Amino acid sequence: MRVAIFVFPELTELDAIGVFDPLARVSAMGIDGNCTVKLVGTEEVVTGHFGASLQVGAVFPRLDRFDLLVIPGGFGTRALQKEIKVIEYLRSWGSVKPVATVCTGALLAAAAGFLRGKRATTHRAAFEELAAYGVEVADERIVEDGRVISAGGVTSALDLGLYLVEKHWGADARRRIAAQMEYTDNGPRPAPAPSQDPAN
Amino acid sequence: MRVAIFVFPELTELDAIGVFDPLARVSAMGIDGNCTVKLVGTEEVVTGHFGASLQVGAVFPRLDRFDLLVIPGGFGTRALQKEIKVIEYLRSWGSVKPVATVCTGALLAAAAGFLRGKRATTHRAAFEELAAYGVEVADERIVEDGRVISAGGVTSALDLGLYLVEKHWGADARRRIAAQMEYTDNGPRPAPAPSQDPAN
Repeated sequence: MRVAIFVFPELTELDAIGVFDPLARVSAMGIDGNCTVKLVGTEEVVTGHFGASLQVGAVFPRLDRFDLLVIPGGFGTRALQKEIKVIEYLRSWGSVKPVATVCTGALLAAAAGFLRGKRATTHRAAFEELAAYGVEVADERIVEDGRVISAGGVTSALDLGLYLVEKHWGADARRRIAAQMEYTDNGPRPAPAPSQDPAN
Repeated sequence: MRVAIFVFPELTELDAIGVFDPLARVSAMGIDGNCTVKLVGTEEVVTGHFGASLQVGAVFPRLDRFDLLVIPGGFGTRALQKEIKVIEYLRSWGSVKPVATVCTGALLAAAAGFLRGKRATTHRAAFEELAAYGVEVADERIVEDGRVISAGGVTSALDLGLYLVEKHWGADARRRIAAQMEYTDNGPRPAPAPSQDPAN
């Protein structure tokens, strides 16, 4: 299983790293040494919407080298969904292999035609934009419809990653990875309210 | 509030980006335009334990330009806690300004002397290593003791970020940011179990 996470300027950094982490643990924890996870993207260094810069492993590499395409979201999707070069690139993925989206990455998947006639989800703030592509939008954390799995906003990236782990490597792999991430299906351990800082 | 997130080779990428995201939204969402969040680190490009590379805004910048130091964790902490240059650098933070740690970032904070006589937490797998520094280790998601706030493993980075948001900008700011991240104090919306893929 060779996973490509497609990154681009003005993405939400956590959308990408949130799904990257659990998938990368599949190999790191010895669950499947043949699982690789690569950041592929539009340029060598991609700066996210919040200003963190990711170095990209490969710029527009041929997608036939990969088995699963993950598309994170972010404000950059609004420009990219109209960029023919990017949409044609995503279309080169074809109509068979699985696709997963985080947040407004669903807009790029829709622009590439991957969501035609499908149910999917996205960040709640982008429900109307996704519906405008003719997608049946669901207010759910994760939606699986055929070969496309879509996740809601930002932190749903973690759940998507664990969902993909369970789908491909089983429930025990998911439990082990979630435990190492200190993340559970019921969310994290509860955190207390902070003491207030009157100086700020 | 100028936040420095200290990054280094073999860090856990999600430790850093998980706390970066909610803090970066403080300015991006117009809550406080004077809040800046920078990745500072040991080299210009830092490659994490799982293979994602972050470009660093400043290499060993003077820490007196910052108001809050955040130290993420990862396997790289085991080597770094013995690197005099790094520990001296962290010590230049001094004994007054606030420090926050994620996961095994607590080991670096302990090596720098920030946790002397304090309660703190870390990744569950590193409780004994942290205790060896004479720290009173607590199995809690977030521990605040004086100027040091420590968080548990990996995904606790999200909770730490939101905790810091609430501490410095109030509960309403936290609620707004958690909503935009689609993350709540009770964890994310529940996700279903995936359909099984018999081919894998």
